[in-house]
Amino acid sequence: MLEEMGKAAKAASYVLSVLSTAEKNRVLMTIADRLEAQSAEILTANERDLADARQNGLSEALLDRLMLNPARLKAIADDVRQVCRLADPVGVVLDGGLLDSGLRIERRRVPLGVVAVIYEARPNVTIDVAALCLKTGNASILRGGKETWRTNGATVRVIQDALRQHGLPAGAVQAIESPDREWVNQLLKLDRYVDMLIPRGGANLHKLCREQSTIPVITGGIGVCHIFVDSDIEQQAALKVIINAKKQRPSACNSLETLLVHADVAESFLPVLSHSMAEAGIRLHADPRSLPLLQNGPADVTPVTDAQLRDEWLSLDLNVVLVDSLDQGIAHIREYGTQHSDAILTRSLHNSNRFVNEVDSSAVYVNASTRFTDGGQFGLGAEVAVSTQKLHARGPMGLEALTTYKWIGFGSDTVRG
Amino acid sequence: MLEEMGKAAKAASYVLSVLSTAEKNRVLMTIADRLEAQSAEILTANERDLADARQNGLSEALLDRLMLNPARLKAIADDVRQVCRLADPVGVVLDGGLLDSGLRIERRRVPLGVVAVIYEARPNVTIDVAALCLKTGNASILRGGKETWRTNGATVRVIQDALRQHGLPAGAVQAIESPDREWVNQLLKLDRYVDMLIPRGGANLHKLCREQSTIPVITGGIGVCHIFVDSDIEQQAALKVIINAKKQRPSACNSLETLLVHADVAESFLPVLSHSMAEAGIRLHADPRSLPLLQNGPADVTPVTDAQLRDEWLSLDLNVVLVDSLDQGIAHIREYGTQHSDAILTRSLHNSNRFVNEVDSSAVYVNASTRFTDGGQFGLGAEVAVSTQKLHARGPMGLEALTTYKWIGFGSDTVRG
Repeated sequence: MLEEMGKAAKAASYVLSVLSTAEKNRVLMTIADRLEAQSAEILTANERDLADARQNGLSEALLDRLMLNPARLKAIADDVRQVCRLADPVGVVLDGGLLDSGLRIERRRVPLGVVAVIYEARPNVTIDVAALCLKTGNASILRGGKETWRTNGATVRVIQDALRQHGLPAGAVQAIESPDREWVNQLLKLDRYVDMLIPRGGANLHKLCREQSTIPVITGGIGVCHIFVDSDIEQQAALKVIINAKKQRPSACNSLETLLVHADVAESFLPVLSHSMAEAGIRLHADPRSLPLLQNGPADVTPVTDAQLRDEWLSLDLNVVLVDSLDQGIAHIREYGTQHSDAILTRSLHNSNRFVNEVDSSAVYVNASTRFTDGGQFGLGAEVAVSTQKLHARGPMGLEALTTYKWIGFGSDTVRG
Repeated sequence: MLEEMGKAAKAASYVLSVLSTAEKNRVLMTIADRLEAQSAEILTANERDLADARQNGLSEALLDRLMLNPARLKAIADDVRQVCRLADPVGVVLDGGLLDSGLRIERRRVPLGVVAVIYEARPNVTIDVAALCLKTGNASILRGGKETWRTNGATVRVIQDALRQHGLPAGAVQAIESPDREWVNQLLKLDRYVDMLIPRGGANLHKLCREQSTIPVITGGIGVCHIFVDSDIEQQAALKVIINAKKQRPSACNSLETLLVHADVAESFLPVLSHSMAEAGIRLHADPRSLPLLQNGPADVTPVTDAQLRDEWLSLDLNVVLVDSLDQGIAHIREYGTQHSDAILTRSLHNSNRFVNEVDSSAVYVNASTRFTDGGQFGLGAEVAVSTQKLHARGPMGLEALTTYKWIGFGSDTVRG
């Protein structure tokens, strides 16, 4: 069946690739309208998913994440309308010129073709990804979390109604309508039809895709993010940034996990840090050198393990590690980081330049919170994923990351000499 | 051992990434000078490789391809000097601006880090890839064809002498000095240290890398290229382009493999084609509909198989297939092509537009030879590989394809609201 889905998606991608921006926007507007008009079908499916999830003992937080209601569907439909307003990157000529041979060449931005996305149990992602793919002329194959398979199926059927209304093939947006994990394994081998695979989710899914997928994969969304506190900081300013990076949304991949503190400032800064963290409700996990300086403070503190330094907390927990120099700080980030987002707090121009040049992460910050790594914050208008690999796209991926380019050569019966 | 090589390469990549263009060019000039000054070491290793290869019964053509002599080494050294003259893409700011949050961001081009290349038994590729990687601040791990392992080892030792002379780590350029295929399997799993893997070579190597590599792979260099002959062509002009695309260098991946002829013009064109191909020494392989029109002509002709239509000839052999329309021609290319280079010969603006928009290949041509798909021809100054996948780079890959970018955010203790 997946072979058939791939074939249908590829065929649909050829149709989508030649649509004008206006045509694509008309489809998106119809999708938004139908999401509201046909909400009953989606909400019924969602209720059944929710009942199963409740029976399987999912936490209230997770249940809330997969729950839809009319207000949420309205907000999602508005998001689709928002995608209409984004600039369409397809068709843009990147560069070109006249070659000595007489051939005129240009490099033109075109859709990727077929994009497959494996994602968590969040029904809004289904619509989000489908809309961004349609806007860029790509067909999509969607596989959401197994807890929302009925909701996703119903949502995609509404999208397909809109496609058909505009004379477009339903293969343009397809969902794998089954909670069975076996479909994922099959999807990973569909390189004949799928041009890009984006796994959103945990480290295990990424590992599975890296090891098993024959489709080019974009991985990301896992952030062990650091802030290096230099010896010359202003303490209150530093604390403001640290609290923002840790607390504003602890579950986000760009939130802070490890604070690297210059040893020269540890004795004066760590007691203040402990007070501030206790106030903010942040628990500390300290390395052997910082532990003695923290354990008399008001903040909760335990020794940190090597494994904890390599993993995301995604909660109000923060590692603290003392380093003797900027070099040691950079070395720690290279060894323990995930090349997502890392920041330096410093008043030294020299050190800020070194940090920016030598830390090899998708996003590096000087005197700013790591929380800025986000398509919306960066003004991309949309975010497909946050890539932590280096090929194709790095950091927040906007619409351009859903495109490639082709070389076009115009001749007059021109031959190579 | 490969783990150690990976670790050394990653460490060296940090050193290379902060070098200025002038510093990198000085190393490249030293490498060029030493390739000439230390040619004896390389030529001795090459003689031993050649002796083995001769004993193993390699053809004279292959022996010639792996043979070095002082003149060839001089030419290779000059190629390295040429790389100094190329513009350095590293450090270029792609875009940036001031966000509403007060954060100033920029996107800056940076090296990939560590690049691994698996390639055929051609000693010049060793130096070529090493030079292009150094120019872009990347460390490289090189695995050439098993017939040239001694030559490659000796060459890389000369390069490492030059690196050391400039105080740079030898880990910046490393060769896998063994003919054992097992090293390739290990290399494919080195994702912890290697940022990009480029397999140059046949379909089997590509398949192995796609299936087994945990490193992001760029595949390419396999071209089943088509020319569609429309019903309104001028026969002599068309023949000129066809002969150029097939004959100028049949072993190249951008050479023509299949001619798609509009049925309306077959009766008048195929007999002329046969004469012209016979003169050019090109053998024809015809589909059932074109066979009767070709078999009384002077050119050698046999029936073509489905498998032959899906494979590269890389010789003076050409498939001929009749199609009833442009749609059929495009459908054939989608089914049998490798998304490398495809051309249309037509006088119809409408058909040329449709071909350009609807054929999903790295390079599409109107009234021009497919042979133009080449970094040199396209003015890229260098060519690392020709990508036929869509992520990261498509078509001829120049120096830019050896880079990625990082996002840099400059704040004043700036937090996300």
